[in-house]
Amino acid sequence: MKVGVIGGSGYTGGELLRLLVNHPDAEIVAVASRTFKDKPISAVHLHLSKILDMRFEDISAGEIAKRSDIVFTAVPHKAAMGHVPELLAQGTKVVDLSADYRLSYDVYETTYGITHTDRGRKAVYGLPELHRDEIKRANLVANPGCYPTGAILAAAPLVKAGEVSRVVFDSKTGVSGAGMIPSEITHYPNVAENVAPYQVTKHRHLPEIVQELAVLGKCKIHFTPHIIPAIRGILTTAHIFVKREMSREEVVESYQKMYADETFVRILDEMPSLGAVRGSNFCDIGCFEVEGDRIVVVSAIDNMVKGASGQAIQNMNIMFGLDEKAGLLMPGVAP
Amino acid sequence: MKVGVIGGSGYTGGELLRLLVNHPDAEIVAVASRTFKDKPISAVHLHLSKILDMRFEDISAGEIAKRSDIVFTAVPHKAAMGHVPELLAQGTKVVDLSADYRLSYDVYETTYGITHTDRGRKAVYGLPELHRDEIKRANLVANPGCYPTGAILAAAPLVKAGEVSRVVFDSKTGVSGAGMIPSEITHYPNVAENVAPYQVTKHRHLPEIVQELAVLGKCKIHFTPHIIPAIRGILTTAHIFVKREMSREEVVESYQKMYADETFVRILDEMPSLGAVRGSNFCDIGCFEVEGDRIVVVSAIDNMVKGASGQAIQNMNIMFGLDEKAGLLMPGVAP
Amino acid sequence: MKVGVIGGSGYTGGELLRLLVNHPDAEIVAVASRTFKDKPISAVHLHLSKILDMRFEDISAGEIAKRSDIVFTAVPHKAAMGHVPELLAQGTKVVDLSADYRLSYDVYETTYGITHTDRGRKAVYGLPELHRDEIKRANLVANPGCYPTGAILAAAPLVKAGEVSRVVFDSKTGVSGAGMIPSEITHYPNVAENVAPYQVTKHRHLPEIVQELAVLGKCKIHFTPHIIPAIRGILTTAHIFVKREMSREEVVESYQKMYADETFVRILDEMPSLGAVRGSNFCDIGCFEVEGDRIVVVSAIDNMVKGASGQAIQNMNIMFGLDEKAGLLMPGVAP
Amino acid sequence: MKVGVIGGSGYTGGELLRLLVNHPDAEIVAVASRTFKDKPISAVHLHLSKILDMRFEDISAGEIAKRSDIVFTAVPHKAAMGHVPELLAQGTKVVDLSADYRLSYDVYETTYGITHTDRGRKAVYGLPELHRDEIKRANLVANPGCYPTGAILAAAPLVKAGEVSRVVFDSKTGVSGAGMIPSEITHYPNVAENVAPYQVTKHRHLPEIVQELAVLGKCKIHFTPHIIPAIRGILTTAHIFVKREMSREEVVESYQKMYADETFVRILDEMPSLGAVRGSNFCDIGCFEVEGDRIVVVSAIDNMVKGASGQAIQNMNIMFGLDEKAGLLMPGVAP
Repeated sequence: MKVGVIGGSGYTGGELLRLLVNHPDAEIVAVASRTFKDKPISAVHLHLSKILDMRFEDISAGEIAKRSDIVFTAVPHKAAMGHVPELLAQGTKVVDLSADYRLSYDVYETTYGITHTDRGRKAVYGLPELHRDEIKRANLVANPGCYPTGAILAAAPLVKAGEVSRVVFDSKTGVSGAGMIPSEITHYPNVAENVAPYQVTKHRHLPEIVQELAVLGKCKIHFTPHIIPAIRGILTTAHIFVKREMSREEVVESYQKMYADETFVRILDEMPSLGAVRGSNFCDIGCFEVEGDRIVVVSAIDNMVKGASGQAIQNMNIMFGLDEKAGLLMPGVAP
Repeated sequence: MKVGVIGGSGYTGGELLRLLVNHPDAEIVAVASRTFKDKPISAVHLHLSKILDMRFEDISAGEIAKRSDIVFTAVPHKAAMGHVPELLAQGTKVVDLSADYRLSYDVYETTYGITHTDRGRKAVYGLPELHRDEIKRANLVANPGCYPTGAILAAAPLVKAGEVSRVVFDSKTGVSGAGMIPSEITHYPNVAENVAPYQVTKHRHLPEIVQELAVLGKCKIHFTPHIIPAIRGILTTAHIFVKREMSREEVVESYQKMYADETFVRILDEMPSLGAVRGSNFCDIGCFEVEGDRIVVVSAIDNMVKGASGQAIQNMNIMFGLDEKAGLLMPGVAP
Repeated sequence: MKVGVIGGSGYTGGELLRLLVNHPDAEIVAVASRTFKDKPISAVHLHLSKILDMRFEDISAGEIAKRSDIVFTAVPHKAAMGHVPELLAQGTKVVDLSADYRLSYDVYETTYGITHTDRGRKAVYGLPELHRDEIKRANLVANPGCYPTGAILAAAPLVKAGEVSRVVFDSKTGVSGAGMIPSEITHYPNVAENVAPYQVTKHRHLPEIVQELAVLGKCKIHFTPHIIPAIRGILTTAHIFVKREMSREEVVESYQKMYADETFVRILDEMPSLGAVRGSNFCDIGCFEVEGDRIVVVSAIDNMVKGASGQAIQNMNIMFGLDEKAGLLMPGVAP
Repeated sequence: MKVGVIGGSGYTGGELLRLLVNHPDAEIVAVASRTFKDKPISAVHLHLSKILDMRFEDISAGEIAKRSDIVFTAVPHKAAMGHVPELLAQGTKVVDLSADYRLSYDVYETTYGITHTDRGRKAVYGLPELHRDEIKRANLVANPGCYPTGAILAAAPLVKAGEVSRVVFDSKTGVSGAGMIPSEITHYPNVAENVAPYQVTKHRHLPEIVQELAVLGKCKIHFTPHIIPAIRGILTTAHIFVKREMSREEVVESYQKMYADETFVRILDEMPSLGAVRGSNFCDIGCFEVEGDRIVVVSAIDNMVKGASGQAIQNMNIMFGLDEKAGLLMPGVAP
């Protein structure tokens, strides 16, 4: 299977390449980057030296589509909608890692404050645990945001069971989520020895969480993200308020049942930790402590893998009828 | 004023000494430690080299009381109640940094699972912002826990106003709160690049928070602590649910009003950060974002200073009628 | 190929398992641990959940040898020499990750202060870049220490060329090198925001470096290790003093030449970084700045992979005539 | 004493203010910043909230000189030489924290690649341990660089004794040394879990070290800096090569003797650590291990205090005949 990547020089682009070089069925045929045109990919992604001997190309979406069975668009929101129509027009399948096709178009425009130039395009929200069958038939998959992946999976079983009145997602993310471009937010002296709440009620990922959980059941959703001194990983503490008191066993069972056939969701007896999922495609879920009407569920993912590029490849595997685990069954890099 | 410290070799003991050496009215007369008997204090607390030229002594509570106007007990819970009666019997005032005198005795015994051997002793909960007048007259002050200090101050104005139905305190602490003894919890590879929820519904500091906020108003309290990769500091994200919707201005005003005369509480326009309070006695409070019936308030303290030894000295200042700020008005060490 | 691991519960044992589960030719048949007998491996190594469904066994060396074509001994020094004779007696090949067979027996006894109970045993020092042919024929390979791997590779080309008079290896290591057991050295508040020199002239890895470089050429060797706030990785700054001044080009050429056919040594134009090798089996070498008679060469490895378990598997591949890269060609997990 | 600060919005400016607010003899009268004109200082330096209630002013050097007995220029090199002549012309004393007056003018121009517009101005290199008497009489003190402070003090006694042939300074610095402006170098994912050598033979601080040690004795100097994951602090590992072998006792004695009357240099039995000096004006020196002709000496400073603003205040104290320790005798913030 021939794979193209648009936006190969950023963090999620680099992560796609890191995972694809060991994918048994994928061949990277083109990596587009205007900024780094003609430069060896390994000059930007040092970790790919001696593994991926290719150069960035400054090529159009049309051209990359011609060479590829599937293209990943790993570009910022707004940029993606500029490429996707042409890619699809060429008959290439697309997994878009940006936010451009995740939300209903009205919600998107409100949330991101821009006009969508490809409104009406049909896309599937690429969370395999909720939408596997649709993904199988999709030409365009909107890869979920990093926070929504960890948050939705942490609450889905209870929401689906109709037990939940309200959830407070208090999420803690590593800094790589902010991307490769230095800023005050990523400035080491601001990050280290600190934990920084931001966009505490209005983060752009909130509408994604709301949209997906609303399908499963009715409840109020709150979401507050924080940046912690870590490179990778998102740990989400879900404070789930339920309508009737439940036992721990009952709770755990609902998670085990919903995720029984899911390779990449692990229900743990232990507390999830970022080390156990680092570099891997797993979403670890655990804790399940009950305190009256509050249940605390904790999820951990690598924001770059299950929260972005790994999930994108999982979607690719599903879209092409490959083994869903292909190229993705590596353990976390712990410690 | 002559000051003695029992338990001078641990983190809070060291922090007391760090602050006391620059206190204009305090003279350290004795520092007790059985383990480090006769060793120079600066051999354990390297940072006090050339500043505090004393040795640890293995002396009884009675003896240290004779030499001191005030004694700080910086020992673990259960140990403190073994010293306090004798100290008070000698007429010395005491600030106890352990948990032994913070709670009603019944709640204490349930929470800590031990029998209190000094039941009935009258002590004042040493949070100056709530109990200043009682502290003035107290012989025994129970210095608050680190988490309760940041949590209570973050919610007090709204709880007092009768507006609150429920609070979820999601707290993030530096590792020094776990003390000087190495353990799996403080093992670098377990801490770094991670954030670790623990005792998510049953932490021993929960009853303190409940006790103090109950005096101000009726509401449900939840508390979930996490360890982050930081040495010092506690940042608490208080998700406060209110009975009626309030404007941001109304919220901020209630905080400004309650803390108008408090030197060590700063109401910020900016988001609090651990750097701004590092090494200082301030509790910074900010955020105040409103989302329907949820208000997000964030507090930041140094767990070793306002969360322990600094507050203990603030209590000493109040008990002896000194300037409450004496020895404590240093800025945070930022960045 | 059937693989056994003695000492599977520690960091290097866990890392062996992490790498072996994706090795195309290896089947893990037994993992010995007395402490964790009968426990699921994934209870200790959370990151192996859903990937390695086995339990620790408390079995003898003899028994594990019967089941295995090769056994890795991932136990502390002194313990290894208790297992190795029995393993070899059964005809199993062995890669020992401890220090027990790395040094001449006299130097070993002086360095480690213990009597060697298996003196005279023939072992090959398992640094493939220097001893590939001997490894091919070996039944017992002594896997190199983490520091020596990075240090030797950083200086070998110039030492071999007879140009070097003296080298000062100033090494910086992540904390995982200190193992899984908490101690003052690994206590987060001691590690974070610090860099700790230790055993600055007498580290046990010095004789290994001396032994291996002495084979290549005559020069004085100094070695000073430091612990930095990082989980994984060793970066070595080699201050190499040469007998005659050389140009940068000449230096780089000597490295490119010596390592031309080495998959796991990468000569970089950029400065090596720990991120680029994290989780991978590469040794990145770069810098090559010349200042009169001093040449600065920098190497970076993951201490757990090329510095331990990855190299052990590389040795296994060589011993069994497999593709040397099998199971090891994954990129670093960057960022 | 009235104090002005030019360049008050950066890290060293903020650190000057942090220290000056607790200085018994100093009154801050003006803080200049064009960028933050009219903004409250505490809006930039949150840690000064409720402590320093002043605003930045956009005023000329002349005007600030009129109000001040002494002015600190905490601006980048090249900018300082634009202010200093006017400040001195007004009769104000100046401590310049930039590099503009540290080196002989020829060396300066070569090192910094710019023409000095105030050549010939007489300035004293403000390392009190070497130049106290000249500082007393100086109107213009060139405050030393951060690296040179730690490096020079670590080697001075042995160099002065004529024992040294060569020194390799391998220094490790916290990120604050790179300043407040975000860049790739300070980007968290590049710093964390890494250690980054840079300008390994050509750092601009090398000529300072050479200049100052050359006065004490003749020897070859090498200097290689690294950035470690820490906010503050510089730990320097000095590999000192001596002409004749010396005993540890002899070495230690030479340090104790030279620094016997120095308040801010502490000769330790223990290994120096960054925690013990964090936020303080001390330079801790220890290790002193001897290995043939190599002696390893380790120094630790806070780059922002003894390495910049604290030393600047120490210089001010000397210039004005105040107690040299005034406002500077706070212990390190450890842990």
